[in-house]
Amino acid sequence: MTSSFFPPQRTLMGPGPSDVSPRVLGAVSRPTIGHLDPLFVQLMDEIKGLLQYAFQTENELTIPVSAPGSAGMEACFVNLVSPGDTVIVCQNGVFGGRMKENVERCGGIAVMVEDAWGEPVSVDKTRAAFAEHPEATLLAFVHAETSTGVKSDAAALCALAKENNALSIVDTVTSLAGIELKVDAWGADAVYSGTQKCLSCIPGISPVTFSPAAVERIQNREHKVQSWFLDMQLVMGYWGANTKRAYHHTAPVNDLYALHESLVMLQEEGLENAHARHQRNHEALVAGLEAMGLSMAVAAEHRLPQLNAVNIPEGVDDAAVRTALLQDFNLEIGAGLGALAGKTWRIGLMGYASSPRNVVTCLTALEAVLSRQGATINVGAALPAAKALLTD
Amino acid sequence: MTSSFFPPQRTLMGPGPSDVSPRVLGAVSRPTIGHLDPLFVQLMDEIKGLLQYAFQTENELTIPVSAPGSAGMEACFVNLVSPGDTVIVCQNGVFGGRMKENVERCGGIAVMVEDAWGEPVSVDKTRAAFAEHPEATLLAFVHAETSTGVKSDAAALCALAKENNALSIVDTVTSLAGIELKVDAWGADAVYSGTQKCLSCIPGISPVTFSPAAVERIQNREHKVQSWFLDMQLVMGYWGANTKRAYHHTAPVNDLYALHESLVMLQEEGLENAHARHQRNHEALVAGLEAMGLSMAVAAEHRLPQLNAVNIPEGVDDAAVRTALLQDFNLEIGAGLGALAGKTWRIGLMGYASSPRNVVTCLTALEAVLSRQGATINVGAALPAAKALLTD
Repeated sequence: MTSSFFPPQRTLMGPGPSDVSPRVLGAVSRPTIGHLDPLFVQLMDEIKGLLQYAFQTENELTIPVSAPGSAGMEACFVNLVSPGDTVIVCQNGVFGGRMKENVERCGGIAVMVEDAWGEPVSVDKTRAAFAEHPEATLLAFVHAETSTGVKSDAAALCALAKENNALSIVDTVTSLAGIELKVDAWGADAVYSGTQKCLSCIPGISPVTFSPAAVERIQNREHKVQSWFLDMQLVMGYWGANTKRAYHHTAPVNDLYALHESLVMLQEEGLENAHARHQRNHEALVAGLEAMGLSMAVAAEHRLPQLNAVNIPEGVDDAAVRTALLQDFNLEIGAGLGALAGKTWRIGLMGYASSPRNVVTCLTALEAVLSRQGATINVGAALPAAKALLTD
Repeated sequence: MTSSFFPPQRTLMGPGPSDVSPRVLGAVSRPTIGHLDPLFVQLMDEIKGLLQYAFQTENELTIPVSAPGSAGMEACFVNLVSPGDTVIVCQNGVFGGRMKENVERCGGIAVMVEDAWGEPVSVDKTRAAFAEHPEATLLAFVHAETSTGVKSDAAALCALAKENNALSIVDTVTSLAGIELKVDAWGADAVYSGTQKCLSCIPGISPVTFSPAAVERIQNREHKVQSWFLDMQLVMGYWGANTKRAYHHTAPVNDLYALHESLVMLQEEGLENAHARHQRNHEALVAGLEAMGLSMAVAAEHRLPQLNAVNIPEGVDDAAVRTALLQDFNLEIGAGLGALAGKTWRIGLMGYASSPRNVVTCLTALEAVLSRQGATINVGAALPAAKALLTD
């Protein structure tokens, strides 16, 4: 017989899921109600409004897709790419490669703009790709690369798409609520995110927003969207404001309680304050890491405050360090992904996990484990350096 | 400012979501751990084993898809249908129609076998369809039609597919854990379900299982699966037993805590006991409804014990009755769907909600509301008739 599962209380400082607020865990376990219950419909409306705030948009089609961020990504591509379409895809990490897969599985042609892992997307190279491919109807890029901890210039890339009469698809899985994201001001057309990063919500849901121009393109498609589950014309019938709600699928009721609560918390704090908090804790962590003698993998001007890529010191056993952090300190940090496996650690300070307590926990634990491994570090230097920059 | 959401405690006797056990709600709010945490990997293995028990299968590829039942359906179709394939689709309610949509969006040709809503799928008609379409590579049907409350003969239909060298895709969203379902004994090839029906879990996850023959067809595909998110070859890399787990998407960690707990509860009760409980409470409900003077919409031999379709008495205001049940008794029952809208109610007795208490609650509330509406019913007759058949 299999027994009930009781997980330990970890501190989640990897690339996500991040620590979930007790308020959110309280919300997810509230009694389930029907997905067509009038009170649930009211909750759906509130979630739309709260997501509009988080995305800084007035887009009517702003909803949570009932599946993880990968499905939110796919929702953007299957609705906007038609067979034969040319899509410019910027890749500077793992997730640009996934975008390429999405384009090709929709029958589209992906024109790749490649930048090194750890560098931002080059706006100049992207401009050149448009010049070479004036037929491109879409530009897709990642705002905050979770695999490398790099921020790209989303405002400039969205503007470039507009100049070239293309729509933009923007991955904001790791950026939403962690750094500035202005969907309307930047003119982003299809934007997806995840709940398990800077929203500090449980994983499993993907907020998306589509501009009026994107909705128009969806409504004028000649080919049916290849996914029934992700067909926004059908989903709109369930989430839409101006229609009698038509049953499409059973919404993940409790997950949406959790998302609602995390968005209420974001609204209470205010976006600007949330961004400032992420920045402050990031600076303290970096000061501590550098005082310890470690180096950051990304140039200062391109760093994401919510995801800190650190070079693994030579001679240190990557997996052994992460295992010790987990076993002895219940602390999870992230391994490198793809080309950066074994070369970097990714230390998340996302949402609820972006706290002075976590900065201190991480520096203390990392120092202890690295010392034990015989790494050459400055013992005792990290905490004072970090604390000088921390406020509570 | 938007405030936190506190739902009322409903009694969920619609077509799902059904009442969620307090044990499951307790599990979902346990601390989130990482989706690559060794303890989470262990949880994944336990879930696979528990799902194998629930499905009565030894299929290695038995996993929860990280999205609702509609996505589980789509996972079966996108992985098994290639462009140009002929698929025989049986339709006797809403969900057969959705299967047709899936086939067509995969570039397949759907040959429809139509039966009246409220009737089971005709095995004879299906046999005739195979005779007319020997090129068919798949047979798709719904075991338990949620829109009508009808059970079809899944064993016979799976056998028929085998005789014709076709694979079977079986919708068991409403049947799993409520009535007999023997994936291996029946030779079903691709089977999907949902968490929010007889598993009494929160909505949002779709258990699926694929036979070795189905896996072989997936591995020999010439066209890439059109969905990246639902591509089982990629998902297998994350859930597979024989590989180093490869990151595919972030699993919905807390939802899987909930699913695990609901499956542990099913294992504790035992499948046969769970089926017997569903049958017993169903018989009591029907006895009560008929004593009240109402009639069932489905012939006795085809009824699902977990979903009871009742004819709405003439002159009774459908919506007003359901609203009164919800507002005055916090009781949700289901409206008719599609062709049966306004003609039937669907009363669920699923999983944790299949209890003597819910039978009594429903009969009492319905009698009160129908009396108030001036319907011609036998007041006072329902409870004694039901209680004679109830055990606690």
